Amino acid sequence: MKKIKYAVIGTGALGGYYGAKLVHGGCDVNFLLHSDYKYVKENGLRVDSVSGNFVLPHVNAYSSTSQMPAADVILVCMKTTNNHLLKDMLYPILQKGTVIILIQNGLGIEEALSEEIPEAGIARGLAFICAEKTGPGHISHFDYGKLILASFNLDRTDVLKNVCDDFSNAGIPCVFSDDLNLSRWQKLVWNCTFNGLAVVLDSKTDVILANDKTRALALDIMKEVIAGAKACGVDLNEDFADSIMEMTLHMRPYAPSMKVDFDHKRPLEINAIYTQPVLFAARNGFAMKKTEMLEQMLHFIDERNRNK
Amino acid sequence: MKKIKYAVIGTGALGGYYGAKLVHGGCDVNFLLHSDYKYVKENGLRVDSVSGNFVLPHVNAYSSTSQMPAADVILVCMKTTNNHLLKDMLYPILQKGTVIILIQNGLGIEEALSEEIPEAGIARGLAFICAEKTGPGHISHFDYGKLILASFNLDRTDVLKNVCDDFSNAGIPCVFSDDLNLSRWQKLVWNCTFNGLAVVLDSKTDVILANDKTRALALDIMKEVIAGAKACGVDLNEDFADSIMEMTLHMRPYAPSMKVDFDHKRPLEINAIYTQPVLFAARNGFAMKKTEMLEQMLHFIDERNRNK
Repeated sequence: MKKIKYAVIGTGALGGYYGAKLVHGGCDVNFLLHSDYKYVKENGLRVDSVSGNFVLPHVNAYSSTSQMPAADVILVCMKTTNNHLLKDMLYPILQKGTVIILIQNGLGIEEALSEEIPEAGIARGLAFICAEKTGPGHISHFDYGKLILASFNLDRTDVLKNVCDDFSNAGIPCVFSDDLNLSRWQKLVWNCTFNGLAVVLDSKTDVILANDKTRALALDIMKEVIAGAKACGVDLNEDFADSIMEMTLHMRPYAPSMKVDFDHKRPLEINAIYTQPVLFAARNGFAMKKTEMLEQMLHFIDERNRNK
Repeated sequence: MKKIKYAVIGTGALGGYYGAKLVHGGCDVNFLLHSDYKYVKENGLRVDSVSGNFVLPHVNAYSSTSQMPAADVILVCMKTTNNHLLKDMLYPILQKGTVIILIQNGLGIEEALSEEIPEAGIARGLAFICAEKTGPGHISHFDYGKLILASFNLDRTDVLKNVCDDFSNAGIPCVFSDDLNLSRWQKLVWNCTFNGLAVVLDSKTDVILANDKTRALALDIMKEVIAGAKACGVDLNEDFADSIMEMTLHMRPYAPSMKVDFDHKRPLEINAIYTQPVLFAARNGFAMKKTEMLEQMLHFIDERNRNK
């Protein structure tokens, strides 16, 4: 098997962690950086991880895709709030057969990219990980890390299976799923619940779950997302809410990515994580009322937070 | 008609305003005060009102009902969060035929008092008023003021009609309603919407309604409360939401009483304004999901606010 040439678009917590692990495992990875470009070009990447710390003193850092070599597999790890820039960013590194894996949150993002670049081979990466960028080129990985890969429109999925092998060899548990919708909605059960609550209640997961009323609310939202998934034809059992609740109760106190974005006054991923799922479910006849209420409140809070 | 002897229980914004207006109109009123007792005993009450300022240098101020003369009509104007103390507070001033008018927020409060004092004649006062206590014995009245009176368990309602006359003569628009449930739910349409949103979003009414998403949310909650009322057999039309929205859009920027309580780190009236309506509707087969979500969040925020 030919060695895959990877490009990581967005070297934050996710892109930094997964990309660095791939390099650490012997893969060929080019990184696109924005604010950290100069720092990482000179100092490389540092990963503090529950599964072992390591430093990469030199990485292939780029500040623009126009200087970057074409890639076999592109790992899109930036926030969905900038997905309107994706088409222009990706064109310089696309070649025949390039697979774009969106390791991002939410619903409807593959559909949007596919409309913009109809010839693109698109897949999704669902990351189940607690990580944060704690400084320039410095990733802290607290918990979990599993990646699920699923095809959106690929003719052949053997590339995804090879990517899976690369991740597994690099120490990242990675599985291939042949049901993109199931995987997307599974991830949403956690995302729709804790991202919004953490922002509206200005709290980490442990504090939200320590209160009887907001723990009940979290469970309500999980079950509502599962009902939304079912309305969309996804076979997701109600018990899944209990297992996600158990997992979150046993996690260390965690600030979901939307809370981190909020604290840094960055735009929140409201559209992909909230608006799209509510729309998908509504189109299939189900009203996700509590999820929609979070969406409504988040718009208000996001605007105030960024003084718009 | 014999002159009615009034007792005002709780001389805050509501009790202070309505009681002072009655005194100003020539009525016989005794006031129960807590923190402001000494100040009001010495300095009386001051009302700054859109319909005219006035000062009452001397009022009948009491710090306990045990020193107060028995009353014909008791206006209970304190927060429902202290209603568990009501039975003991009222006994010393009850006499045969005393009518207790609860000028309070929420649902289920008449039912609770009636269980505690089975012999009590109970009525409800629904206050549509924007007022705030801005200092000891100092009430600021910004807008509106209308009072609706409705019987809960009175054998004869002529007393209520006489009270209505006293209020009207004192310059308070007052009407008698023979449908307590309709009046209670009408008031809830505003209360369930703006009290909770103002606390969760930490904002006054104008800011909430200036944002498209939270204005839509406010309308959603109003319509949900109306649907809850309908489930409980109350004949309330959906159009009522639009008229309440219009009214609120034309009010001066207003902090609902729950927001004022929140800012002063006082307990919030969650049970009467949220828990009870949600329960009443649920018992009648309707789930008030967004209202319930406010209730759940308010419990969390209230506990944090008072460092419980």
